[in-house]
Amino acid sequence: MQSKPIFAPELTIPNGVTDVEFYKNAFGATELRRFSNDDGTIHVSELEINGALFHLHEITQNYSLSPDKADGTTVTIGLFVEDVDAVINQAIQAGAKLKSPAQDYFYGYRQGSFVDPFGHHWQIQKTIPQTNE
Amino acid sequence: MQSKPIFAPELTIPNGVTDVEFYKNAFGATELRRFSNDDGTIHVSELEINGALFHLHEITQNYSLSPDKADGTTVTIGLFVEDVDAVINQAIQAGAKLKSPAQDYFYGYRQGSFVDPFGHHWQIQKTIPQTNE
Repeated sequence: MQSKPIFAPELTIPNGVTDVEFYKNAFGATELRRFSNDDGTIHVSELEINGALFHLHEITQNYSLSPDKADGTTVTIGLFVEDVDAVINQAIQAGAKLKSPAQDYFYGYRQGSFVDPFGHHWQIQKTIPQTNE
Repeated sequence: MQSKPIFAPELTIPNGVTDVEFYKNAFGATELRRFSNDDGTIHVSELEINGALFHLHEITQNYSLSPDKADGTTVTIGLFVEDVDAVINQAIQAGAKLKSPAQDYFYGYRQGSFVDPFGHHWQIQKTIPQTNE
């Protein structure tokens, strides 16, 4: 790999979803395009947060579980941002459920986390100077 | 958010893991640091693939499931790279299980996917010109 690879998580959502307003309101995300089923529900939605791409994908294969089906998540969506507090506050305003408020950790991260309306866990973070434990 | 946010997924792994060689062999990943439990097993491993950061995190909370516990995954790890075929081939050599070989899709992606030894699904991709369906 010559150039830097870029992570773009694909979040599984339940079947029958039409509304991605949360991501627009929480992150100022833009929906770039959407592939819908015949009944108008989302098959795949392609979104970006200020240039950072991610996807929502309905359940289509037996390994793909929405968090409500899994009763948890297998991946936490880590997102590095400039202003951790502002992003978390905006997400909470948009309907996310706060899990851990933003705070500085000795290992050199300011982090806070929330759960989105589909049950995905987001870890919002930035690097800060490390301190001794 | 002024600067571009960056996704950095945090993959849940089972408790008791010590070996992250797969990610080194598959992606040429470098382990930047590791926080271990007293018994030497991984609490958190911080890795990067040519500058793209991600984490492995053992199960510590009731929502966090390794794919074997969930019997599936709630997020597919999308990764944009320059050479899709080379990355997939190297991952298979390192022990990943091929799910879908690399191919061009009309929606403007070349994609292929595999499952890593912990059960996480990776979608390796790059953008290509779109074609008519």
